[in-house]
Amino acid sequence: MEASRPLDALNEARGKRVVVDLKNSKQYVGKLKAFDIHINVVLDDAEERADGEIKRKIGTVFVRGDTITVISPE
Amino acid sequence: MEASRPLDALNEARGKRVVVDLKNSKQYVGKLKAFDIHINVVLDDAEERADGEIKRKIGTVFVRGDTITVISPE
Amino acid sequence: MEASRPLDALNEARGKRVVVDLKNSKQYVGKLKAFDIHINVVLDDAEERADGEIKRKIGTVFVRGDTITVISPE
Amino acid sequence: MEASRPLDALNEARGKRVVVDLKNSKQYVGKLKAFDIHINVVLDDAEERADGEIKRKIGTVFVRGDTITVISPE
Amino acid sequence: MEASRPLDALNEARGKRVVVDLKNSKQYVGKLKAFDIHINVVLDDAEERADGEIKRKIGTVFVRGDTITVISPE
Amino acid sequence: MEASRPLDALNEARGKRVVVDLKNSKQYVGKLKAFDIHINVVLDDAEERADGEIKRKIGTVFVRGDTITVISPE
Amino acid sequence: MEASRPLDALNEARGKRVVVDLKNSKQYVGKLKAFDIHINVVLDDAEERADGEIKRKIGTVFVRGDTITVISPE
Repeated sequence: MEASRPLDALNEARGKRVVVDLKNSKQYVGKLKAFDIHINVVLDDAEERADGEIKRKIGTVFVRGDTITVISPE
Repeated sequence: MEASRPLDALNEARGKRVVVDLKNSKQYVGKLKAFDIHINVVLDDAEERADGEIKRKIGTVFVRGDTITVISPE
Repeated sequence: MEASRPLDALNEARGKRVVVDLKNSKQYVGKLKAFDIHINVVLDDAEERADGEIKRKIGTVFVRGDTITVISPE
Repeated sequence: MEASRPLDALNEARGKRVVVDLKNSKQYVGKLKAFDIHINVVLDDAEERADGEIKRKIGTVFVRGDTITVISPE
Repeated sequence: MEASRPLDALNEARGKRVVVDLKNSKQYVGKLKAFDIHINVVLDDAEERADGEIKRKIGTVFVRGDTITVISPE
Repeated sequence: MEASRPLDALNEARGKRVVVDLKNSKQYVGKLKAFDIHINVVLDDAEERADGEIKRKIGTVFVRGDTITVISPE
Repeated sequence: MEASRPLDALNEARGKRVVVDLKNSKQYVGKLKAFDIHINVVLDDAEERADGEIKRKIGTVFVRGDTITVISPE
């Protein structure tokens, strides 16, 4: 009954707030709305953070998969 | 009824002004005219920004997908 | 009877605690829950380390494969 | 009647002068002669610029797609 | 009778100790247990070295292929 | 009658001297002998240049495509 | 009768001593034993050089293709 594929874990996080870390050290925090096999991700009610501080509120944001390092719950 | 794939979110943004962030820290802001599955993007009425300042007005611009980090509403 | 393919070694590590090293020098340590052929990985009970110190406890974390350098037992 | 795919926009620029920006911050300016789906590009009557200055006149130049960030009208 | 493909050379090294050099300048030294066409590699009885010094003993280690530069006998 | 695909332009340059610029800022100058769709290139009577100076004469050289930024006539 | 594809040039170099330049500025010099379409390469009687100096003698070495910039005769 456990999720055994990585994308299952993302699927369980759908609709919940997640932190998306990028290779350039920025973070995008928001509600996980959508993702695909390239790990392209869309967040709602999102904000950009750098060095732990909120840089801008950006509503919906599309994050290109190949720029992502990790995704974790907020 | 909600968009459940990342490209649906881009499709909803078509015709609206978006901010495209690049890996080299530049931003291109303009009206989203076209995109494809590689996230190649075309913006109309576009301008290039660096460090928050407008660097040049460039009309239509083609942005290669693999240089993009995030796309968000202006 | 020995594992002869690299993914067999990951399969044997499933359910055990592993250290995942990233290209950006961060480490994620946790119980290996899932992986796929892209080496996308999901860890449970995970924590992020940098320079040997725990930076944050993050529960479940999805690590994108192309950002990983090595995976080893804790 | 509008171009709805990114390569359509490049097609409309064929025969016109464009600026091709590279990841290494160089610019190649010339008449767009040819391109393909990898965004490999050929310019005629081209020149290389760095920091806004003309570095060399190079006639025809082949630019490899994966080194390009944006293409815009001159 | 000579190996004429690169993976044949890796196959001959199976079970022997090898040095795996990474793009980030780290070295992993151990007994070559497994590899695949992506050059993902598993080493047994492995240790991590940096600047010629042993940094940690790590038993079995999975090294992602795209982070590898060269593999040579110890 | 005009070349309309980027590789046509390379084909026209076959047998002529070209300058191949690399991502690491080196240049290889020689007679274009062969190329393929990955833009792997072979030059004859070639020399390596760095900062505009000849570093070594190297006869025939194979240049891996993904390291190339631009190819232009000498 | 001339070699017209880049891999033909590598094939002609088989059994001869070549210099393999890497993106990280290291050089591997040895007898070209094997290569494949990814430009993965195996050298015999090889040595590693950095800044023109021999760093280590390494017998047989496997060099991963995507780390290579150019291959030339010694």
